[in-house]
Amino acid sequence: MPQLRKDPVVDRWVIIAPERADRPNAILRATPEREGERESCPFCPGNEAMTPPQVLAQHMGDDGWTLRVVPNRYPALRTEIQMSREGRGLFDSMAGVGAHEVVIETRDHSLTLSDLPAAQIENILRAWQERMADLSRDIRLKSILAFKNHGQPAGATLFHAHSQLVALPLVPPAVGEELRGSRKHFEEKERCIYCDVLAQELREKERVVLEAEGAVALAPWAARSPFETWIFPRRHRSSFESAEAPELRAVAETLRTLLRKMDVALEKPAYSLYLHTMPLREQPNDWYHWHLELKPLLTLQAGFEWGSGCSINPTPPEEAAGFLRQTEV
Amino acid sequence: MPQLRKDPVVDRWVIIAPERADRPNAILRATPEREGERESCPFCPGNEAMTPPQVLAQHMGDDGWTLRVVPNRYPALRTEIQMSREGRGLFDSMAGVGAHEVVIETRDHSLTLSDLPAAQIENILRAWQERMADLSRDIRLKSILAFKNHGQPAGATLFHAHSQLVALPLVPPAVGEELRGSRKHFEEKERCIYCDVLAQELREKERVVLEAEGAVALAPWAARSPFETWIFPRRHRSSFESAEAPELRAVAETLRTLLRKMDVALEKPAYSLYLHTMPLREQPNDWYHWHLELKPLLTLQAGFEWGSGCSINPTPPEEAAGFLRQTEV
Repeated sequence: MPQLRKDPVVDRWVIIAPERADRPNAILRATPEREGERESCPFCPGNEAMTPPQVLAQHMGDDGWTLRVVPNRYPALRTEIQMSREGRGLFDSMAGVGAHEVVIETRDHSLTLSDLPAAQIENILRAWQERMADLSRDIRLKSILAFKNHGQPAGATLFHAHSQLVALPLVPPAVGEELRGSRKHFEEKERCIYCDVLAQELREKERVVLEAEGAVALAPWAARSPFETWIFPRRHRSSFESAEAPELRAVAETLRTLLRKMDVALEKPAYSLYLHTMPLREQPNDWYHWHLELKPLLTLQAGFEWGSGCSINPTPPEEAAGFLRQTEV
Repeated sequence: MPQLRKDPVVDRWVIIAPERADRPNAILRATPEREGERESCPFCPGNEAMTPPQVLAQHMGDDGWTLRVVPNRYPALRTEIQMSREGRGLFDSMAGVGAHEVVIETRDHSLTLSDLPAAQIENILRAWQERMADLSRDIRLKSILAFKNHGQPAGATLFHAHSQLVALPLVPPAVGEELRGSRKHFEEKERCIYCDVLAQELREKERVVLEAEGAVALAPWAARSPFETWIFPRRHRSSFESAEAPELRAVAETLRTLLRKMDVALEKPAYSLYLHTMPLREQPNDWYHWHLELKPLLTLQAGFEWGSGCSINPTPPEEAAGFLRQTEV
C-alpha cells in the first residue's frame, strides 16, 4: 500500500509506492525506445481489455474512440484507501490517498503529441479539465498534477502517446513555492507576478519563443535546464479547470508549434511537460496564473543538483529562445 | 561568463554557465561508459599537463602523486571575476563568483572509489577538508558543495575516479532547508535533530544499514529514491571542515563498505554522493550535523518529480536497508 512520508528535517513529502517497482522497465536501463510492440500495446485500439475500465472517452463519429482516460495500472496513489495520519517519534506519515490516471492521447500508436493536430491537443487539455473536475469532488484530494513523459530518457515506459494525472492529498512543494511567491508579490503590488513577467518579457523580446494572440511561450529568466520553455495563456486566470475554449485552443496551438520547433531544433528530444495550476476547489484569484512548463531532457540530473537543490544550466535562455524563434516548422 | 539568476517567483537561484556546454559528452547520449581511453585520460599519471595546474597533491613515498586536486576545465563558477549584483525589472542576478575543482581520487585509471582502501578514501575526505579551508578564506564564497558523480547515467563524463568541489556565493537551497529545519527543532527542544534521528533509528533498527563505532549508515525515513542512504558520524559536529581523523576514518570505512554492498546488491550502480555541512566560516553549533548522502541512480527523474517537487520512490527504505544489511562483502 502506498504511503506519503515527511522528512523530519525539511518540509518535503515523499510518496513511498512499492507497487510501482513492478512496472516493466521501471528501472533505468539503456534500452532504446521502441516503435514496435503494437500487438502488446495496452493503449492501442483492440487492446482496451488490457487497461482497467476507462473513466472517460472521446469519440469522433462512429470510428471508435479518439482519446481514453484509464486508471494507471501501477498507481503511485490510490483512491480506495482510508485517509489516516500517523506520527511515530520524529517520523510523520499519511496514507497514500490519491488517484493516478493515464490519458491515452490518440488511437494511433505511431503518432507523438507533436504529430497531432492542434484540435486534438485541445481535446487532451479538455480531458485533463474534465478529469480534474470529477476528481475534485473528493475532498481528500488537494491538488492534481497533470504531466507527460515523452521518450524513454524522460521516464516513459510505453511508446504510445499518453499523459498522466496524479491527484494528491497535499499541495506539491513546487506549486506551493509558486503560490507563496506570487501571493507575496500581490500583497506588495496588487498585481499578478506572472502578468508582470509576461509584460516585461514581451517588452524585452529576447526570451520570447512564440507570441500568439492568446498565448505566449518563453524561455524563463532562470531556466533550470537547456531549452526549458513555459507557455502562458495571455488572459489572467488562476485555475486551469475554468479556462475556456479560446484559451485552451491558444495554448494547444502554441504547444504544438513549440513541440515541432523542438523536434527540428533538438532532433526529437525526450521531454517532460507539466501543468501548474491552483489547488482544487479554490475561488478564482488575481495573484496566480496557470501555465505549462516544458523541459527537454538534454542533460542529466547529477550530484551537484541533488546535493544543492540548485541547477546548472549550460544554455542561457536567451540563446535557446533565439534558436527556437529561428527554427522553421 | 557564468552568472547566477534568481527566479522571480520562487526562491531559487540557478547558475547559467554557458562554458559547460563545451564539455565532451555534456549532453545526455546513450553511450556506454568506457573503461578505455587511458592514453587520452587527463586524470592519468603522465597526462598532468592536460589539466590546469594542480592546487593540491598528496604523495606516498617517491612513487609520484596518489591524489591531485585541479581546477575544473569547464567550471560552473569562477574565482577570477568581480562580485556584482544586478536587478532589471523583476529579474535579479549576481556574477557567477565561485570555484569549481576536481579531486582526482587515485592515480590508477581502472579503480573506482569502492575499490580503494579505506585509508585512501580518508585521504580524499581530507583533501576536501584542505581545499575547503583554503577556499573559505575568500569571503565572497558562502558555502562549498563536495560531490561525486559515478558512472555515465549519474553525469560522469570521465571514467577515472574523481569528485568535485563547487564553492558558491550563496547557501544552496537543499542545505538552507536543512539549516532552517534543524534550527527550528533546536529552538523547540534544545537538541540536534540529526542526533535525535540517529537515536530513534538505532532503536528501531529497520532502516539501519551499517553500525560502526564512529559512524552509521541508514536509509532515511523519507528516502526520495531507491536505496538512498545517508552516512552520519556518531559524534555531533556541525562542520565537516573541523572533523578529526577518527571521525573521517569511521566515515571513510562506512562509505567503503556501503559502496561495496551497493556494487554487489545493485550490480555496480551509477550513483551521486554529496556532503552536507554548514556554510563556511560558521562557529560550531549544537543544532546542525554534517553527513554524506548517497543516491544510486536506478530510476529516472520524470515529469511528476519536476512538476511537483515531490519524489515517487518505489522502494521502501526498510526494504532497501534490509537488503543491504544482508548483502555480504
